Amino acid sequence: MFKRLTYGMVGGSKDSQIGIVHRKAINLHGKAELVCGSFSRNFKNTLATGKELKIEEKRLYRNYEEMAEEESKRPDKIDFVSIVTPNSSHYEVAKKFLESGINVMCEKPLTITLKEAEELKQLARKNNLLFAVAYSYTGYSMLRYARELIKRGEIGEVRFINGRYISEWMAKVPFAGKNSRHEWRSDPKVSGLSNCVADIGVHVDNVVSFLTGLKIKTLIARMDKFVEPDRLDDNASILINYDNGAEGIYWTSQIAVGHENTLDIGIYGTKGSIEWSQEHANYLKISKVNHPFITLSRGSEKVDDFIKNDYVTPGGHQEGYVEAFARVYDKFINAITKKKKGEILEQRDLDFPTVEDGVEGMRFIEKCVESTKRGASWVEF
Amino acid sequence: MFKRLTYGMVGGSKDSQIGIVHRKAINLHGKAELVCGSFSRNFKNTLATGKELKIEEKRLYRNYEEMAEEESKRPDKIDFVSIVTPNSSHYEVAKKFLESGINVMCEKPLTITLKEAEELKQLARKNNLLFAVAYSYTGYSMLRYARELIKRGEIGEVRFINGRYISEWMAKVPFAGKNSRHEWRSDPKVSGLSNCVADIGVHVDNVVSFLTGLKIKTLIARMDKFVEPDRLDDNASILINYDNGAEGIYWTSQIAVGHENTLDIGIYGTKGSIEWSQEHANYLKISKVNHPFITLSRGSEKVDDFIKNDYVTPGGHQEGYVEAFARVYDKFINAITKKKKGEILEQRDLDFPTVEDGVEGMRFIEKCVESTKRGASWVEF
Amino acid sequence: MFKRLTYGMVGGSKDSQIGIVHRKAINLHGKAELVCGSFSRNFKNTLATGKELKIEEKRLYRNYEEMAEEESKRPDKIDFVSIVTPNSSHYEVAKKFLESGINVMCEKPLTITLKEAEELKQLARKNNLLFAVAYSYTGYSMLRYARELIKRGEIGEVRFINGRYISEWMAKVPFAGKNSRHEWRSDPKVSGLSNCVADIGVHVDNVVSFLTGLKIKTLIARMDKFVEPDRLDDNASILINYDNGAEGIYWTSQIAVGHENTLDIGIYGTKGSIEWSQEHANYLKISKVNHPFITLSRGSEKVDDFIKNDYVTPGGHQEGYVEAFARVYDKFINAITKKKKGEILEQRDLDFPTVEDGVEGMRFIEKCVESTKRGASWVEF
Amino acid sequence: MFKRLTYGMVGGSKDSQIGIVHRKAINLHGKAELVCGSFSRNFKNTLATGKELKIEEKRLYRNYEEMAEEESKRPDKIDFVSIVTPNSSHYEVAKKFLESGINVMCEKPLTITLKEAEELKQLARKNNLLFAVAYSYTGYSMLRYARELIKRGEIGEVRFINGRYISEWMAKVPFAGKNSRHEWRSDPKVSGLSNCVADIGVHVDNVVSFLTGLKIKTLIARMDKFVEPDRLDDNASILINYDNGAEGIYWTSQIAVGHENTLDIGIYGTKGSIEWSQEHANYLKISKVNHPFITLSRGSEKVDDFIKNDYVTPGGHQEGYVEAFARVYDKFINAITKKKKGEILEQRDLDFPTVEDGVEGMRFIEKCVESTKRGASWVEF
Repeated sequence: MFKRLTYGMVGGSKDSQIGIVHRKAINLHGKAELVCGSFSRNFKNTLATGKELKIEEKRLYRNYEEMAEEESKRPDKIDFVSIVTPNSSHYEVAKKFLESGINVMCEKPLTITLKEAEELKQLARKNNLLFAVAYSYTGYSMLRYARELIKRGEIGEVRFINGRYISEWMAKVPFAGKNSRHEWRSDPKVSGLSNCVADIGVHVDNVVSFLTGLKIKTLIARMDKFVEPDRLDDNASILINYDNGAEGIYWTSQIAVGHENTLDIGIYGTKGSIEWSQEHANYLKISKVNHPFITLSRGSEKVDDFIKNDYVTPGGHQEGYVEAFARVYDKFINAITKKKKGEILEQRDLDFPTVEDGVEGMRFIEKCVESTKRGASWVEF
Repeated sequence: MFKRLTYGMVGGSKDSQIGIVHRKAINLHGKAELVCGSFSRNFKNTLATGKELKIEEKRLYRNYEEMAEEESKRPDKIDFVSIVTPNSSHYEVAKKFLESGINVMCEKPLTITLKEAEELKQLARKNNLLFAVAYSYTGYSMLRYARELIKRGEIGEVRFINGRYISEWMAKVPFAGKNSRHEWRSDPKVSGLSNCVADIGVHVDNVVSFLTGLKIKTLIARMDKFVEPDRLDDNASILINYDNGAEGIYWTSQIAVGHENTLDIGIYGTKGSIEWSQEHANYLKISKVNHPFITLSRGSEKVDDFIKNDYVTPGGHQEGYVEAFARVYDKFINAITKKKKGEILEQRDLDFPTVEDGVEGMRFIEKCVESTKRGASWVEF
Repeated sequence: MFKRLTYGMVGGSKDSQIGIVHRKAINLHGKAELVCGSFSRNFKNTLATGKELKIEEKRLYRNYEEMAEEESKRPDKIDFVSIVTPNSSHYEVAKKFLESGINVMCEKPLTITLKEAEELKQLARKNNLLFAVAYSYTGYSMLRYARELIKRGEIGEVRFINGRYISEWMAKVPFAGKNSRHEWRSDPKVSGLSNCVADIGVHVDNVVSFLTGLKIKTLIARMDKFVEPDRLDDNASILINYDNGAEGIYWTSQIAVGHENTLDIGIYGTKGSIEWSQEHANYLKISKVNHPFITLSRGSEKVDDFIKNDYVTPGGHQEGYVEAFARVYDKFINAITKKKKGEILEQRDLDFPTVEDGVEGMRFIEKCVESTKRGASWVEF
Repeated sequence: MFKRLTYGMVGGSKDSQIGIVHRKAINLHGKAELVCGSFSRNFKNTLATGKELKIEEKRLYRNYEEMAEEESKRPDKIDFVSIVTPNSSHYEVAKKFLESGINVMCEKPLTITLKEAEELKQLARKNNLLFAVAYSYTGYSMLRYARELIKRGEIGEVRFINGRYISEWMAKVPFAGKNSRHEWRSDPKVSGLSNCVADIGVHVDNVVSFLTGLKIKTLIARMDKFVEPDRLDDNASILINYDNGAEGIYWTSQIAVGHENTLDIGIYGTKGSIEWSQEHANYLKISKVNHPFITLSRGSEKVDDFIKNDYVTPGGHQEGYVEAFARVYDKFINAITKKKKGEILEQRDLDFPTVEDGVEGMRFIEKCVESTKRGASWVEF
């Protein structure tokens, strides 16, 4: 009996944290099985990883090109590939799989230039393939409910947005970037134009867009290199003007000592506000004009009703990162399954971050870099 | 190639929340596959659930007896069964599977009498089977690290323990117990001697035991029935004396309006204290005598080092309930796998809540009921 | 022009923290002036304190007896005395001033036996004098508003009360009690029957009584001496049954490492609950059955309206301990002023903790000690 | 015997909140007495206020000019004046008293133009008078301790500063500014160039300067008018470059629904960080590179030792706004007293916000307005 889709992975060898997270997130709903991979540029590493993951040796590939080519020839070729390599190779790997007729889930940032991202978008469209980007936070139930509340007009028209994604790892001593497994992040050859904005700042942009649908009109970005010998940004301050007249401030940092991974979003409207913090992801602070604020949790009755077909963890217990990420994958996998059955996909079937979101993220990064180069002055979007 | 263990489930039909949680927790590490079940006393429901879960129809059983008998005859019989039925049937179901030579994971409370629990313990031992009990909180990384800190003597000798597990669902209006899917919880025929203490209070007992290893010497319990027409306790206050001279207070409630699921544990020693809250499960408050307190998170370097082989979610992100529960299952499944290979199990292989913990939980419940019956007076353990 | 009442102080020399707090709390509203004192058993210390406080030397007294006698002869005798000596002398000092026709504000616990407390109550009544007790927390705006909400029936009938007042100072190393300025607290000759319950536990009893008006019917207390060479209790666990059928648990401690001064009160009723914490004194957590909980702050419109004639600090800013204490003193001073003008005092003029509350506190302490002596068994109130 | 300084007040009639706060803050330490005033432009109101405050009628003045002239002729003229009128009159009132030889405490913002502020600074210097500005937050013990830690190098060199002072009152419905007692705040004739930045944003600038001593080199400000019919800013986003290479972001708002008065400051250095929030003013979050963060409270031993000569409220209890403000006044009053005795004032005697800080605040406001007018572009300081 047909039970599961199959997928392969590029990158994500057994010692890579990001590979584990993707595999477990896919496991959670049990709808797809890992059957092939090219987990490392070092084939021995790929073999060792494949062995640990109990993958047939013949489906362990020397490189992604071989994998795409061999898999595309199989009658039981994989239903999608997960790309979890460093930023600079996303483009070529994704392109290869799209050309081979295979759906793609790619880590963010989508590419290292906007142009590449646009190209992938066109290619996916042309080849009629599904393409998701791993903006994992959008899978959290409370963020999804916040989106619903904003859509319903509960906070009125949005006036101001405050977002921050701040962490401390680049400030560690001895310097965390040097000789660490994260060194590539500050290497322009591997990371592209940006480290901090591309790695974490882009999540603020994505979550704000997810929640409000607002488009950026103009921005100023001041990107910094505080840590020596940093070669790319480790901190950035960004002012935004949105197309509806709303405004925003984003702060993203890897030198904010005392913060492991603080992602806080506040959306302030004419009638109320919504605040969410990744570190307390199961709660929303909801404030209405002239009323004391309320704390809404995943177990609150209305929330429970909204999300009931879509969650695992009972109210009052903690929905974690893996479950949020699993929700993103689940919607992607459901769409593939539906398409595979020959059914027509509707807009609501595409309720996961897509290549379009990936393109917007790249535009955001490029505009930040452009503004910084021009002395932190306003640039049009 | 051999990839996964197989398991079956008794109870947990498709509309049951608890069944979903168990299945997803098992999915997460991808080491066991659901292949059979008797999900409901109503066979149509079992069939519908089986279809949704893509289980072969011939392995969907009319009742647990049939399932145990048929499975035990198969050469590819299941490696374990998960029992997620209401309390009163745990005993008979578990007994049947133990007699059929099948390892068991059972929901808590283990049974409805201490005597039954003891019997299951003996039977598991006699038949050389592994038997786990679903004390899921013990899977949280930060609780596991707290146990390590206490073991190392970081807080000195334990003096006092404060625990509470409080919730509000029985206080809801109209009365939540009546005609709700939870009605059975206040029905003595199904729940046994206790509702609140057996359902949630027992977790406080288990977590304290997990963290400190202390044994209860005497206790007083005052169990209440505040909500009409409650037939079993919905609130309890418990004073404990431990064997080392330490003392404790536990409060457990289903009428604590404003609390969805508050499980807070504080352990106070001669040198320091540790506090953990389920609602902020990724943090510990650690206090040392004469020092300001610190907040330790899963991403802190020492914690990270301690748990690194055993987690999915990167530091700074939220480890949730499913991941904690998955860790409990994972250790159980690893033990079964090792045993299946014919290897000798050592004590450290049994680092999951076992039938012994289940028995202790039943003793706790019975002693609480006994003390209450005697006017909330001291009873020996 | 007549501007201020005058008062004297017994105890509270310049190096005593408690004396400073009383004087500043009185200063805040500027309605009474310190004009005499016997600040220490050591007259040199009294002289030095008097000099610092710019008090006329002839109104610095060798002891409280002299002070009461001399002041009572003056045409401009003090309007009240503040007694801030250690517990064991409260009785004799208060008695002397009452006999001299002077109103009294006394630190808690009121005395060291219930009998003495009752005697003071009778004496105050007989001599028609005002007698306040320094239960300072009842002056916090948010606790006063909580009382109002409970009175209005917002949480329905009270079912359960959870209170704790925990601190760590006795757990400090080297032992804080020994050779410290707090040593007297664990000395039965000075502190009386109890240290921890009398010093801080009694506040829980008082705040609960203030908020709910409930009377204790029976209680169990288990008082401990964890710290060597402690001669009095440093920790206690208390179960309460109230006269309306409600129940409670109190925990009070001086060995709860990590807590400087945690006073948390939760009142759980049939329709909702109210929780307040001294460490975040400007907020209430209010929960209604079937609704998400709200956080009410001093600046919330309804609260602001309720307290507007009675506060200093604007909403959004922090009302602190001195302001709370000043509110208690202010109501006492207003009552004295009204009485002095010959007006009739109504019940609402006595909205401060009185000698009656002090007597109730002593009853609570004695009953805790009695229960402990009887092996932590139930005692009638 | 000489007991207290004397002071007068301009503005602050009995229904004004700000007048009350100043008077109570002065009362707290009991070192100065209110003896005269011109509390309102409406003399009847001044008379009524004076009566309530028990001031001699002959020292109640029709206007500030009369008050300054009459008081300056008295042998017992006031030691200082507190100016608590709306912004636009600060300059003329302060000038008049300085010309009359009277020390000044003035509300912030100091004036409505930088030029006026500079003039007051010169005048105070010329006439050898003390001049304080009511930047009240700098009186909080924990902010003062934070300054000490930064000075000692505990967080290394400052890299980044994040500050926000956000509130919601202008977002209230019906529009809070219109016909409310706060209407003047959005009236340019009374408030000057700015509402939000001048009223609350300026506190961020002041606290940052107080903590770090850093000077602003360049800034961008985007000031907004979200609420109709607002005539002045109700929200602003500000990017800062400091002279040492550090950078900052400030956000100030009166339309941030859900925030009564949130003032949060984070200072991030090479070795650690310090974060403080007005809403939890008795705590600091201290983080050191490579260590878990600690929560330092006013009762922590080292803090206690640092502040012991300078506080009222015992550790563990809440130091509130009035006490913080009283500390600012106390240092000002102590300086006047010392000067009055003919002693030489040293730098440490001037540890309160002075006219120099007021001038800096005005420069900050003017530069923000200038940047906004130039399309939110960088301006030199």
